[in-house]
Amino acid sequence: MAGNSFGNLFKLSTFGESHGAAIGGVLDGCPSGIEIDFDAVQNELNRRKPGQSAIVTQRKEPDTVEFYSGIFEGKTTGTPIGFAIHNTNQKSHDYTHIKDSYRPSHADYVYDQKYGFRDYRGGGRSSARETASRVVAGAIAKQFLSEMKINAYVSQVGNMKMGTPYQELDFSLIESNPVRCPDPEMAAKMEAYIKEVRGEGDTIGGIITCVMQNVPIGLGEPAFDKLHAELGKAMLSINAVKGFEYGSGFAGVAMKGSEHNDQFNQDGTTKTNNSGGIQGGISNGMDIYFNVAFKPVATIIQPYQTIDKDGNFVQTKGKGRHDPCVVPRAVPIVEAMAALVMADFRLLNRTIKVNS
Amino acid sequence: MAGNSFGNLFKLSTFGESHGAAIGGVLDGCPSGIEIDFDAVQNELNRRKPGQSAIVTQRKEPDTVEFYSGIFEGKTTGTPIGFAIHNTNQKSHDYTHIKDSYRPSHADYVYDQKYGFRDYRGGGRSSARETASRVVAGAIAKQFLSEMKINAYVSQVGNMKMGTPYQELDFSLIESNPVRCPDPEMAAKMEAYIKEVRGEGDTIGGIITCVMQNVPIGLGEPAFDKLHAELGKAMLSINAVKGFEYGSGFAGVAMKGSEHNDQFNQDGTTKTNNSGGIQGGISNGMDIYFNVAFKPVATIIQPYQTIDKDGNFVQTKGKGRHDPCVVPRAVPIVEAMAALVMADFRLLNRTIKVNS
Amino acid sequence: MAGNSFGNLFKLSTFGESHGAAIGGVLDGCPSGIEIDFDAVQNELNRRKPGQSAIVTQRKEPDTVEFYSGIFEGKTTGTPIGFAIHNTNQKSHDYTHIKDSYRPSHADYVYDQKYGFRDYRGGGRSSARETASRVVAGAIAKQFLSEMKINAYVSQVGNMKMGTPYQELDFSLIESNPVRCPDPEMAAKMEAYIKEVRGEGDTIGGIITCVMQNVPIGLGEPAFDKLHAELGKAMLSINAVKGFEYGSGFAGVAMKGSEHNDQFNQDGTTKTNNSGGIQGGISNGMDIYFNVAFKPVATIIQPYQTIDKDGNFVQTKGKGRHDPCVVPRAVPIVEAMAALVMADFRLLNRTIKVNS
Amino acid sequence: MAGNSFGNLFKLSTFGESHGAAIGGVLDGCPSGIEIDFDAVQNELNRRKPGQSAIVTQRKEPDTVEFYSGIFEGKTTGTPIGFAIHNTNQKSHDYTHIKDSYRPSHADYVYDQKYGFRDYRGGGRSSARETASRVVAGAIAKQFLSEMKINAYVSQVGNMKMGTPYQELDFSLIESNPVRCPDPEMAAKMEAYIKEVRGEGDTIGGIITCVMQNVPIGLGEPAFDKLHAELGKAMLSINAVKGFEYGSGFAGVAMKGSEHNDQFNQDGTTKTNNSGGIQGGISNGMDIYFNVAFKPVATIIQPYQTIDKDGNFVQTKGKGRHDPCVVPRAVPIVEAMAALVMADFRLLNRTIKVNS
Repeated sequence: MAGNSFGNLFKLSTFGESHGAAIGGVLDGCPSGIEIDFDAVQNELNRRKPGQSAIVTQRKEPDTVEFYSGIFEGKTTGTPIGFAIHNTNQKSHDYTHIKDSYRPSHADYVYDQKYGFRDYRGGGRSSARETASRVVAGAIAKQFLSEMKINAYVSQVGNMKMGTPYQELDFSLIESNPVRCPDPEMAAKMEAYIKEVRGEGDTIGGIITCVMQNVPIGLGEPAFDKLHAELGKAMLSINAVKGFEYGSGFAGVAMKGSEHNDQFNQDGTTKTNNSGGIQGGISNGMDIYFNVAFKPVATIIQPYQTIDKDGNFVQTKGKGRHDPCVVPRAVPIVEAMAALVMADFRLLNRTIKVNS
Repeated sequence: MAGNSFGNLFKLSTFGESHGAAIGGVLDGCPSGIEIDFDAVQNELNRRKPGQSAIVTQRKEPDTVEFYSGIFEGKTTGTPIGFAIHNTNQKSHDYTHIKDSYRPSHADYVYDQKYGFRDYRGGGRSSARETASRVVAGAIAKQFLSEMKINAYVSQVGNMKMGTPYQELDFSLIESNPVRCPDPEMAAKMEAYIKEVRGEGDTIGGIITCVMQNVPIGLGEPAFDKLHAELGKAMLSINAVKGFEYGSGFAGVAMKGSEHNDQFNQDGTTKTNNSGGIQGGISNGMDIYFNVAFKPVATIIQPYQTIDKDGNFVQTKGKGRHDPCVVPRAVPIVEAMAALVMADFRLLNRTIKVNS
Repeated sequence: MAGNSFGNLFKLSTFGESHGAAIGGVLDGCPSGIEIDFDAVQNELNRRKPGQSAIVTQRKEPDTVEFYSGIFEGKTTGTPIGFAIHNTNQKSHDYTHIKDSYRPSHADYVYDQKYGFRDYRGGGRSSARETASRVVAGAIAKQFLSEMKINAYVSQVGNMKMGTPYQELDFSLIESNPVRCPDPEMAAKMEAYIKEVRGEGDTIGGIITCVMQNVPIGLGEPAFDKLHAELGKAMLSINAVKGFEYGSGFAGVAMKGSEHNDQFNQDGTTKTNNSGGIQGGISNGMDIYFNVAFKPVATIIQPYQTIDKDGNFVQTKGKGRHDPCVVPRAVPIVEAMAALVMADFRLLNRTIKVNS
Repeated sequence: MAGNSFGNLFKLSTFGESHGAAIGGVLDGCPSGIEIDFDAVQNELNRRKPGQSAIVTQRKEPDTVEFYSGIFEGKTTGTPIGFAIHNTNQKSHDYTHIKDSYRPSHADYVYDQKYGFRDYRGGGRSSARETASRVVAGAIAKQFLSEMKINAYVSQVGNMKMGTPYQELDFSLIESNPVRCPDPEMAAKMEAYIKEVRGEGDTIGGIITCVMQNVPIGLGEPAFDKLHAELGKAMLSINAVKGFEYGSGFAGVAMKGSEHNDQFNQDGTTKTNNSGGIQGGISNGMDIYFNVAFKPVATIIQPYQTIDKDGNFVQTKGKGRHDPCVVPRAVPIVEAMAALVMADFRLLNRTIKVNS
């Protein structure tokens, strides 16, 4: 309700501004007895962190998470897991130019309207830095959901779209390149394109595809809390996301029912999977797959005109260290949010079956 | 959490199966003192009800809502509004053929897996009949939000896509044709196409566009409960929806930041509106617009093979009275869910401003 | 949040005013496959209903519940259970005298202050009539919790206090007298006293004790959602309740730790049970017992002075048909709320053990 | 739902074990623009902290809170306030004796039953150390509710009961003695008695009375979320609490309606206040007052028998540094929880009036 919690039974509450003392969160409801692989958690943070490659922001944040509670002798205790990531590399002076003016297509203006004032440094709470807390919690959710496989990857950058269906991809190639596209040839082109865009001081959007396999049957609730509705909300809550589709998605609009319907095999699996693993809001045991559309990052390193608090036009220019394209770093965020949704429904579900 | 409630401060809980005694709901949190226009409520139900035109299901349900509480001397009292719509035209014998078998791409199979058994008549709880309760609550939400204008319309059926941007449309034409497309020429083509598809015993998908105008600034919460994330969840919770996009949406992926960014006017409005009226999850006072993708209805009047409870293949054929295309009747549902989201945030918001 | 729902996983939302068309509710989250004993549900309503004996209000309401959904072929389906009780015996003209004046110690005044106006007939939403919906839901909760025994009874009326500890009582005697006190001798005295008070046009308070046996170990959550905190909230949400204590309760204040501590037996049970079956907010498998204090009903059949909307003093006199003492009819309400709390925690708990 | 959050609009989520790295929380929903008096926050923590006087535990914890977010240039920003208190004085070796055995009337046994294992050091999550996080959040709530006066004090220790009604007390005397009883003579007796009990290695219970003044009219919701029901839950969620009563409380049971009813003055205030400032679950602008009963602390410094994990009897003796009587340190906790409840309802309420 207050807006900074996600989930019900497996619930994450986050706090923190881009340039405050720390960001972090409380993960409540994680079952007891899960052995935590701390390296795996840090590895997820490393996939998200700035400075990891030439095509992401060159800001350097070590992004080291400290756990304060809920884990004892290496295992979860069933009590809330409190954690923090201290901010160490805030260059707040980079942001004094936006103290009194509003960057176009950022949240600066609406924050001032809603709250009366704002922590302007680095975008404050509206910065995607908040998602580091989600990645920590998502990494724990993944360990809880160890039987499930959750893989996200970049399938489009600008107009460059990978045509290969996910079934033909080798997910182990996702981490083989800085774009996180499992088609190495396409990845190379995307990388070159992102560098070109960066050279212009500009930015570009992209699409992340996420695939969840080995999903139990029966997750999701019939009416409002449909599985794909929660997944959609989760994805749309990530900074810069403009759209979500699952299964046949927007393309399904142009299909006829006779072609779209997924015929059954005798074991309850289906021959096709236009449903995207979800029927009536409930998982059917088939692969769940969806696409998440990201707009181009708003901060561009070009001169632009904007307004200040008093409604005067001012000329300015983007500064700071920003991403020319957000999707490579957003891959672990998509996976984290997907894992949080699945963990919540996994706890809610009382009787589950897995296609074997 | 239990899955059949939507909203927090302006909260709807629904109940009811397609062929049970009644469907209905409890709308809790509606402020006191709102004069209810009962005709307007019934009118919204009429827009959704079956049998209203030649291109929707010919089932006849009067869909008359009875209010049980929360309204006194014509005005809301601030206490929960209980209501029911009695089911009067259940032809349950139409459904005995699906008692023991699963219709492809319906929820039959997953309900049996999740709950052990199901009310198979008419799809039970998974039927879109449940959305009539949403329309009732949404009609009241609209009356609470009287200063806001919420208009949805059909912008695509199959591959037939209306090109006109919403700014150039006359919304008063939406109800002038059974498709609910405000472009009369395109509407005629869509109508003919839907009839053709129905003649084949088949179904087709479509897209509904929704536009919200005169929206207060400051609605939406920063992190997880972003305004568009809640709108996305709301839309994805409607039967047959496969995708949601707002503002520039999926097309924004291919844009550069320099082109996508919305430049400010001196009064805080923006010259363009790729943001779709929402920045950082918070309304900025510009028009909010979004698209909702609907798949083709799964029930087709053609022979098909499926499986029964024991995993045997059975040959069957769709019966009953179904919609060849769901979007004309879904227009008031999209508006209702949009209104429920806005009413909830409207109550949550403490200080609001409207662009005048 | 909106105030008319209780529980999270096993969640009841109620609606209805005393003299509106109907009261009722939606019970969401009830597991599927429970065979509903409708007679048992009606029996609980009968225990609560007016006119059942000489010491309760002589209003006649048949209080027949209609189920609208969520039950198919006699069993719960896992979908929301919608139900209503139509109001048939409203004598609203009894209440015109309070339309513009405020009865002392009733909610009339605060409703007008909070909502601007109110449905004054019979107290509207503030009437204890709302609790009939709780009794319906509680009756279903009891059937879900069939292994648990939940018994409430009247242990005090005015200063007449039954001394016998619950362990020595025969709960089958509770229904043997109109007071619902399992000590027949004391019950007779209480009954005579209530009649005497009624004869004076006055009212008197009382205490209900509730005992829950065969409770699984592990129900309740550590910090805020302690089992006894939810039980306390549940009881305090019943009309006219002024206090709640469990285990040693207020008397425990004067005990020393050496005397209060419950020593263990080897099987994990305890020799004494000052803890009241709950330690650290979590059930330990011992009997849970608690007391609920009810104030005297505010409506007295005596002349009194009060104020009207404009702050003028007016002389008036209670009318209508009211209870001289609320506790006999509140016994099934206490049991219902206790059952709702236990059902919610029962669903939340993942691994449970029962003392055998 | 997951159990470690309190409130809806003004929501606290806490984390932390007694001897973990840190305790803390996230306070979400605090309005923007509140100037935080950090000294006042620390002062509340000091009132709760161990080692503050001769009659509380001699453990030394500086209990210094660090704020991580949500406050910028001394004012709240409207975003979540993350904070932590690092644990510095854990003497965990004091607790190895309870690693495999269960202290009577502690949560040790039920934690092992519920979670399979536990952080046994200092009681882990079940320790009252968690309440320091509540005190931090409550101190901020108090600053938000600056027009309201919230005062709690010790009114009973063992059988020593202060007779003076709160109206005749000078609340400025509460902090004048280590017991926090505003009657200096009674305070001296209580202090001597607590020392005597401590000398026996024993513990004793007590009662805290809380008074809230200058409360807006209209706080609280009609059915389940009655103001006193939430206050009751809040108080019962504090460690060692066994009972709650408000207004006339348990004593009201023996009163007649004619005597209990609060007659109106012409301005809507009442001549008496048996209602305790709440009618029908909604504040009426009169003082709210309630009592909270605390049992004697379970840890006694005497030899006792208990069982180990395998059900063997073991002889042991309380160690560590414990409170002989919990109520002096619990006074700020009661105030904090009261403030959290009021802040939540204050945000929920839409139209409020204050008696002037």
